[in-house]
Amino acid sequence: MTLAELAAHLDATLHGDPDTLITGVASIETAIPGQVTFVANPKYAALARTTHASAVLVEPDFPQIDTATLRLKNPYLAFARCIELFYQPPVYAPGIHPSAVIAPTATIGANAHIGPCAVISDHVTIGDHAVILPHVVLYPHVTVGDHFFAHAHAVVREFCRIGNHVILQNGVIIGADGFGFARQHDGSWYKILQSGPVVIEDHVEVQANSCIDRATIGQTRIQSGAKIDNLVQVGHGSDIGPNSLICSQVGLAGSTTLGKGVILAGQVGVVGHLTIGDGVVVTAQSGIPGDVPPGKVVSGSPAFDNRQWLRSTALFHKLPDLVRDLKRTQK
Amino acid sequence: MTLAELAAHLDATLHGDPDTLITGVASIETAIPGQVTFVANPKYAALARTTHASAVLVEPDFPQIDTATLRLKNPYLAFARCIELFYQPPVYAPGIHPSAVIAPTATIGANAHIGPCAVISDHVTIGDHAVILPHVVLYPHVTVGDHFFAHAHAVVREFCRIGNHVILQNGVIIGADGFGFARQHDGSWYKILQSGPVVIEDHVEVQANSCIDRATIGQTRIQSGAKIDNLVQVGHGSDIGPNSLICSQVGLAGSTTLGKGVILAGQVGVVGHLTIGDGVVVTAQSGIPGDVPPGKVVSGSPAFDNRQWLRSTALFHKLPDLVRDLKRTQK
Amino acid sequence: MTLAELAAHLDATLHGDPDTLITGVASIETAIPGQVTFVANPKYAALARTTHASAVLVEPDFPQIDTATLRLKNPYLAFARCIELFYQPPVYAPGIHPSAVIAPTATIGANAHIGPCAVISDHVTIGDHAVILPHVVLYPHVTVGDHFFAHAHAVVREFCRIGNHVILQNGVIIGADGFGFARQHDGSWYKILQSGPVVIEDHVEVQANSCIDRATIGQTRIQSGAKIDNLVQVGHGSDIGPNSLICSQVGLAGSTTLGKGVILAGQVGVVGHLTIGDGVVVTAQSGIPGDVPPGKVVSGSPAFDNRQWLRSTALFHKLPDLVRDLKRTQK
Repeated sequence: MTLAELAAHLDATLHGDPDTLITGVASIETAIPGQVTFVANPKYAALARTTHASAVLVEPDFPQIDTATLRLKNPYLAFARCIELFYQPPVYAPGIHPSAVIAPTATIGANAHIGPCAVISDHVTIGDHAVILPHVVLYPHVTVGDHFFAHAHAVVREFCRIGNHVILQNGVIIGADGFGFARQHDGSWYKILQSGPVVIEDHVEVQANSCIDRATIGQTRIQSGAKIDNLVQVGHGSDIGPNSLICSQVGLAGSTTLGKGVILAGQVGVVGHLTIGDGVVVTAQSGIPGDVPPGKVVSGSPAFDNRQWLRSTALFHKLPDLVRDLKRTQK
Repeated sequence: MTLAELAAHLDATLHGDPDTLITGVASIETAIPGQVTFVANPKYAALARTTHASAVLVEPDFPQIDTATLRLKNPYLAFARCIELFYQPPVYAPGIHPSAVIAPTATIGANAHIGPCAVISDHVTIGDHAVILPHVVLYPHVTVGDHFFAHAHAVVREFCRIGNHVILQNGVIIGADGFGFARQHDGSWYKILQSGPVVIEDHVEVQANSCIDRATIGQTRIQSGAKIDNLVQVGHGSDIGPNSLICSQVGLAGSTTLGKGVILAGQVGVVGHLTIGDGVVVTAQSGIPGDVPPGKVVSGSPAFDNRQWLRSTALFHKLPDLVRDLKRTQK
Repeated sequence: MTLAELAAHLDATLHGDPDTLITGVASIETAIPGQVTFVANPKYAALARTTHASAVLVEPDFPQIDTATLRLKNPYLAFARCIELFYQPPVYAPGIHPSAVIAPTATIGANAHIGPCAVISDHVTIGDHAVILPHVVLYPHVTVGDHFFAHAHAVVREFCRIGNHVILQNGVIIGADGFGFARQHDGSWYKILQSGPVVIEDHVEVQANSCIDRATIGQTRIQSGAKIDNLVQVGHGSDIGPNSLICSQVGLAGSTTLGKGVILAGQVGVVGHLTIGDGVVVTAQSGIPGDVPPGKVVSGSPAFDNRQWLRSTALFHKLPDLVRDLKRTQK
């Protein structure tokens, strides 16, 4: 593909030789001639002058450089589209493997690919164009929309409902029992039936080995477009707002409500029965002890305003000096 | 079911119309007429006056309110029993699916349900009334008691022993190798065989994708009635006391000993080779660096007394002010 | 086996009765007569005088004690070798279970054991002496070296490459999609194809339910001899140096580079796009916000020098006293 063709495909303005051949994509440090790369973060801008890439995707007002540039509003998104031109993941043709176990009461839409040893239980309904890879288990009464993609070993438990264009990576557990027990007089714990399903809306992706628990009563909900990374725990009865981004190893206790476009960085923990407002950003390893108003950036365990936290943590290193100064002053 | 019938079933004192029909359960905020709800936590008491529920489960000395009340000692436990009246999880009838792989040397008790592709290896013994769902794997020489319930994709490794009424949620790994390696002179690591089984006593539940490692020598033990949430790591050689509650994403390093009724909140970490006494409560995200005496509540990373920690964290926000004050004083 | 025979097997110097029979191994506190134990950590040295073990593995210059001793340079390594004398894990004889699903285009080396319901997809290549237990799934185009051992429910995704003598414990996910999304103008997230495989070198072990994500572009690499504990997250594009040790529940964000012999203790978090030098040790629950030079020991969230951190955390308990002292001084 020539640079001119690539520019046309991406609807970008090309500065450079339109006939240069592009054969792949790479990061700005590792790119070699023939590859295209990108600058989305200003701190990598300097590397655009030294990269061996044949072309760099940049924003429209990026400075003029010797390397060819493809200019457009969202270079990172354009880069994502470039990868699609040069990498082809496995394709799973329609068909049902003879070792799959499909209940006679299940309903499966058109063009489904169902792999070895997948289990589709009684009263399951699946839309069109599903890809269900080996050992996926859909428990009884699950309903799934169109374009479902479930990787090997994903599980969806009884009565859960999944929308369209949902992706489950490997080992994901949707709708296992929430952690609900009532203490008895002798100190033992009485298991509380977890009666409420998980409801997953359209365009959600849940990544490897994450767990989204069913609700004690009511439901656990993942709203449209939310993305959940690996090894995340979503407690029973939680409600994740649309387009929220939950990074790896985050844990939400029960009945947590997240607004729209919330970003929780890695290993964040959230105490249950609280609300995190629209657009909140929580930095890595923070612990959220109470409601967070919309738009805030918070940090720390327990978390508070990020800028204040940065100042406090900077001084934490110096506590010994502080104590020494105080003692001198006292003398 | 009428309120009178529900009161009789729960052995509660009814204040209100005995003929009111109850058709379901709900939380106090979302309940509608026909539903029963509960107040177990005094902070929700005010909502009992405004709920749309037809009846509220409360403690005997709860104030008189307009809504009907069912009065008894443990409203939360009673609520758990109400859910059982109105929700029916899937029932798994006895029978062995033809795709299950069962070794001829395995012994399986009466009334077992064994689902598709389950693997029961050589010399496994299982008690009566087992429910073993798809893709569960029991390695050789596993023994399991009565009323075992293993959800799809649970695994029990070689020689592990499981008591009666044990529940494993999806993706649980019982008895995988502990993280044991001896450093060699060239910096490489020599794998140490993990010879000791996991022993799980009666009425234990382990939830989705949690891992309980086998021991290097001796055993790893989960005592009677302990409950373990999702994505928990129990290191090799640990011993969890009876009725302990381990919340999601907790990590116990090797040879940790927990007393009776210990509660570890989410994302707690415990350094190995230490003892946590009976009834200890550790708040979320705390890190336990050493022994904790019985009855303590501890917090922080590293953890110390909870009340002291609350005071210190409250002041942590103010470190910049503190430093400014100190500098002024010095002048 | 007599002590003399054991000493010869381990190449140790025996102090004690050569004819004593040894029938097993145990920890120093629980050992009974007939068992051998070890002292590798000076803090357990005193127990060598009171243990009921028949012999203790110690370093050459260990003091003379009444109990028999076997003296050698690396008692812990010797203990690992003792366990092998007395414990026999299950042996998996060569053979392919009829329920395994093996693509005609797959190539499998000599002496493979392939268990029930394992799935070996198109164009997979596996070396000699593989043990592949039930429900393992190798996606298309995976290549694996000799002496591969994959426990039940391990998954290796498309195009990943695995060296020799690699062990995957149960539920491990190698090469699931990295968490890569480009934000669109309406706040929704566009999935970025994750085109780069995971490359695992020789003698690596990955333990239960850990996830090593494939790369957006390039590759994710685990170098020779690295050991990764349970429930660990390795983000896309990371590179783990040889003989590094990653403890349970550690999370590495994308493009993290670890040097040789790095040790990350439990629940450590590492922000992406940074480098941790050779031999660095990070203590439990720490959060790494930036590059760490070789040889450092760091602690805290955010992490800094371990000794400085110990001083600061010791004073953190005393913040309320400090504030009180400051106020008095001001008066």
